[in-house]
Order: sequence, then structure tokens, then C-alpha cells
Amino acid sequence: MWNETPLAARLGMRWPIVQGPMSGGPSTPELTAAVSEAGGLGCMGAGYLPPGEVRAAIRAIRRLTARPFAVNLFVPPSVDVSAEQMETALQALEPWRAAMGLPPRPDVAPPYAPSFDEQVEVLLEERVPVFSWTFGIPGAEWMDRLRSAGVVTMGTATTVDEARALADAGVDAVVAQGSEAGGHRGTFLHPAADALIGTLALVPQVVDAVRVPVVAAGGIMDGRGIAAVLALGAQAAQLGSAFLTTAESGANPLHKAALMATPAHGTVVTRAFTGREARGIANRFAREMAPHQAQAAPYPAQHAFTRELRARSAALGSTDAMSMWAGQGSPLARAGGAAELVDRLAAETSEVFARLR
Amino acid sequence: MWNETPLAARLGMRWPIVQGPMSGGPSTPELTAAVSEAGGLGCMGAGYLPPGEVRAAIRAIRRLTARPFAVNLFVPPSVDVSAEQMETALQALEPWRAAMGLPPRPDVAPPYAPSFDEQVEVLLEERVPVFSWTFGIPGAEWMDRLRSAGVVTMGTATTVDEARALADAGVDAVVAQGSEAGGHRGTFLHPAADALIGTLALVPQVVDAVRVPVVAAGGIMDGRGIAAVLALGAQAAQLGSAFLTTAESGANPLHKAALMATPAHGTVVTRAFTGREARGIANRFAREMAPHQAQAAPYPAQHAFTRELRARSAALGSTDAMSMWAGQGSPLARAGGAAELVDRLAAETSEVFARLR
Repeated sequence: MWNETPLAARLGMRWPIVQGPMSGGPSTPELTAAVSEAGGLGCMGAGYLPPGEVRAAIRAIRRLTARPFAVNLFVPPSVDVSAEQMETALQALEPWRAAMGLPPRPDVAPPYAPSFDEQVEVLLEERVPVFSWTFGIPGAEWMDRLRSAGVVTMGTATTVDEARALADAGVDAVVAQGSEAGGHRGTFLHPAADALIGTLALVPQVVDAVRVPVVAAGGIMDGRGIAAVLALGAQAAQLGSAFLTTAESGANPLHKAALMATPAHGTVVTRAFTGREARGIANRFAREMAPHQAQAAPYPAQHAFTRELRARSAALGSTDAMSMWAGQGSPLARAGGAAELVDRLAAETSEVFARLR
Repeated sequence: MWNETPLAARLGMRWPIVQGPMSGGPSTPELTAAVSEAGGLGCMGAGYLPPGEVRAAIRAIRRLTARPFAVNLFVPPSVDVSAEQMETALQALEPWRAAMGLPPRPDVAPPYAPSFDEQVEVLLEERVPVFSWTFGIPGAEWMDRLRSAGVVTMGTATTVDEARALADAGVDAVVAQGSEAGGHRGTFLHPAADALIGTLALVPQVVDAVRVPVVAAGGIMDGRGIAAVLALGAQAAQLGSAFLTTAESGANPLHKAALMATPAHGTVVTRAFTGREARGIANRFAREMAPHQAQAAPYPAQHAFTRELRARSAALGSTDAMSMWAGQGSPLARAGGAAELVDRLAAETSEVFARLR
């Protein structure tokens, strides 16, 4: 049957449905566990969490389910930034901070992100079943240790070149992220603007280029999308925005409402929020910062610089300066429980293949 | 069976496979007729042809096949351009013309495109089976006359709003053009940059929004892609780049070779060639004109301004200043005959659905 792919068998998934990691709020242990319990693969987006919180999240998931799940991290980029760049980026945020009643400068200092090495040590210590990542490739030593520990690895690619690089590094599966995807672009070998390849075009090219299984991501919202990517040769579908609006998602209610109400042409890829290109709703901050995007500090500094502003906007009940990641399929998002959604997705996919033969 | 969609039945297609119009070279009566003869729907891209040549092409197609086919035209935009804008656009081309051994200015004058009204009159007089278009919606009077004449109409949409507008105007089918598509963006209600929605996300949203059948376009290159868009709810798949490399295509051999050799991240959406956004290979002209795109004259003036330069580049055997439209699926393009390709596409699609059930 359509759901019996080799990757699904390896990961113990009844349905080849992966919940996309949505770090920084939407991703919760409850969501991860609910998806895995329902027969998919839940995925905890833990990129922003300090090692202790990563461990706590893993243990919380394990209290809720005995089934396999994934944890997702951000491979740290190696970027040199000048003090001038930092200053320019902070200055551009001052009018926004003033408008939200904040002092001119945020109280932040490097390092701007948790230690990736310490996060991965936690994954190894806790023996997570699946480790997925984005923004690059962990070093060869990490790949060896993960393999030895029996952790299944999944790296994110936005081009065929990136998929080949991941396969060469020894990943167990490649997540092919199309341009429709909400949230951060996983691009690491090209300028991000060059690597906005639609899921429908990207997936078969990646399938042809690598021997490992491919998970398709970007724009998949219902059984029609899952059936489509399986037809393209993917062995599983990864859905983020579709799970963002579920009850177990920790996304801000304003974000959930905006996601379902915004047409697909109302999202934009911007680096204004975090210093890395990400697709979200084209709210006031995204629109007004668009001409100054080049001046944003690189990730993770810009993410740290805008954190207080984003939180303040949410606290004021305003979506103006919130980062509201959303894929281009978002208008198809549905409210309800995550397990219920997995059931619906499986039933819808079966219906598509029953109709087409 | 999967190929028996209501739209395929209405258009007399054995396979729900539409050849995408590729005006300005690739589209030939031979290609159109070969696709229709093989059981798909051939489509003559006639947007740049004067009315007499439109008529000649239709008659040439009819000499080669008795099966239904389509003719595609460009709905003219209503744009006011200042003499200053024209001057700026022409100046930007001067270094390119000099490098190619051409005098500083091209010998062109308005109108820069054939009369749309006269072209449509030809379609009515010749009673073409199907009229597809892009860039907008023909006026209500045209829609009435086309309906009375029994011409099946298909308009191109790149967003849900555009699909609704076309359906409200009374089209028989909507072509949903995803961001992967090569050639001109059909966008007419939004800034083109906002309307780069991936096929996988766009098609189901359009299917849900309109009651008329949807034809999916953008990134479809083989049976996997056709199966995918049928799963998404489309009643037919439109393939352009896949047919561009066939023997019957009139595309320049340099273009055919470049299309198969360029990775998906090597295409770009640019208005430098024609004044309208179009996806093509990021060759030297596209790359170097990128910062000056805003200064390009609007379509169709820019198209006329660059015509001699593009032709000269081709004559010199250089791809530097050729417009080489290409979709993001282009690396999957195959050489061979068009009828053979239709047969392969149908067989591949059947295989996908035999595998997935």
C-alpha cells in the first residue's frame, strides 16, 4: 500500500507523515508526541533551546509516547560580522523598539545561540531515535558518532547540490525543502534567492540524484499534497504549517488565526527577523524592513536583536512585529487536534489513490 | 482510469497532457500537431505573431492533424510609459549592442506587439478548438463571442484571486501556473514577485476556489509530475520545458542544450528581456541586468528593444544575450520526438499509479 515505504518501515511510522520542526514556539513535546502516537513522526524543533531544555523536552516527549520521534537542530553557520554591521542592524530596529515602548537597544550579548555541540551531546546521551537538521551538515566526527549510536539522521536540502552533499556526508534521509515551505530556508551552498525551487520540481530531481530516501517538504497541507509528493518519489511528506494550527501547537493564537486568513501571495521570504531567509506572513515589519534586509545582522545575531521586539509585539496583541512563519499552502490549514489531523491526512491520501488508478 | 478526466473528455484528449505554449521560437505547428496526434493537446504559442502568421500557423496545424489543438495569445496590458522611461531602457542596452557589433539604438517604433483584437478575430474565423491566454482577461465582448463560437477558453492564473477573476469572467478552464514554470509569469492582479507560488501549493487552492477544471503548470517534466498534479486535483498537466527539447520544437539548439545542462538553481525570474517577469536561464544578460531590471521598459516595448540583440547573440553562437526560458524542472528534460514523449509520459504516469494504491 502507498503508506508502506522503506523509510516509514525504518522509522516505525504507520503513515509516511513527518511533522515539520517549528522552533521557537509552535513546536511542543505535546505536538511531537501526538503526531508520533497517531502513527506519524513527530519532530521537536529545538534549535533555540539551551541543552538543558533540549533534554527536558526529550524527556517530556518520552513521558507521552513510546514511539519514535525526531529532534531538529540548526547547524551553526560560520559567519564573521563586523561591529559596524551589528551597529547598523541595531540602529534599524530603534524606531520599531520606540514605537513598542522599548528602550533603544536590546540587552543582548554573544553567543547569540545555544551551543550546537552541547545540544548534539544531549541527543546522543538521550539516544533520540531521529535527528533532523537544517542550515548545513554536522562535521564528520558528529556523523560518525551519530551513526555509531544508531541515531537516524535527516538533513535538509533546497537544491540537488545540497542533497548530494548531505548524501556524501552519510545522512540516512534527505529532506527536500521546496520554496513553498514556511519558516527558515535550509539553503547552505547557494545564495538563498537562487535556491527557491518549487517542491514539485525539486523532489524528483533530488530523488534521482541520491540513493537515500527523500522526505518532501513545502506546501503540503492535506492528503492531496501527500499523494502528490509520494507520486514524485518521496518516501514521506513533511508538513509544518498544517500542524502549526493544531491544538497541541504552541504557536501564538494571533499567528494561528493569521496563518489561516492570509492568502498564499501574502507570504514573503525575508531575513529581517532572524538574519536568515525565512518565509512568513508579510506583516508590517516584514514589509517595511524589506528595503533594509541587506543591513540585517547575520543569523543568529539578528534573531537575538529582534527577540524582545517580537515578544513585545505579541504581548501588546499586535501582529505588526511578530514573526509569523507560514508556508504557501497555509490557507488550507485546519484547526483541531494533531492526532485527528494525522488520521484525516491518511484517509485523504487513501482516497486520492483510490480515485486515481 | 486516471486519464479520464472531464476536461480530457471535453477536449478530446486521450491523455490529460497539454503542451505549454512557448511563443517566439520553440512553438511550431509541427510540435502542436505532434502532441495532439499523440493524444495530448498541442498548443501554438502565437502571441508574437501578426494576424496573418497566426492564420498560417493554424492552417499548417490542420494540415498535420484533425485532432483538437489550442492557440495561445498574450492579453495586452494597458501601461503608460514616459519617453524618459523608454530612453533609460534603451540606454541600458547600448553597451550590450556595442559588444555585439550593433549600432547603439534598435530600429523600432510602436506598436511593439501585434494587435490582440486582430489575432482573436483570426482565431474566431478559423474556429480554433481551444484558445488559451496569459497576462489578463479578454474583455466581456470577446468572452461572449468566443462562447457563442464554441471555442473552449483557458486563462492563466498565478494566484487564487486571479483564478476567481477568470472563473467569474466565464473561462472554461483555469491554467494554474506555479512558480516553477519557465517563461512569462501570467500574473495580472499582483506584483509579480508576490505571485511566485509553488505548483504544489497553488493547484489545490485553485481547485478549491473555482468550479471549472484546473490545468496545472510549472515544474512538470515526467509521469511523476503528471501524477502529482492529478493527485492535487488538476484535470490536466501542462508541460512547457519538457517539450522545448523535442525534435519538433523550434528552440535554438544552444537553448535546448543549455536547458538540459543548467541546474534548477540556475534559473531566474527577470524582466530584463521583455519587460515582463519570466523565468529563464541566468545567463550573462540576465545576471548583469539584474540590478537594472526596474529600468527596463514595460512589455511589449522591452521585448522589441531587445529583439535584435537577442537574435544577434544567437547568430554569433553565444548564449550571453539570448532569452532562454526554462522552468525549474528543466534538468529532467529529454531529447526525442514529441509523440514519443507523450507516449512515455502516459506510460510513466500509469506506472506511478500502479505503484501507489
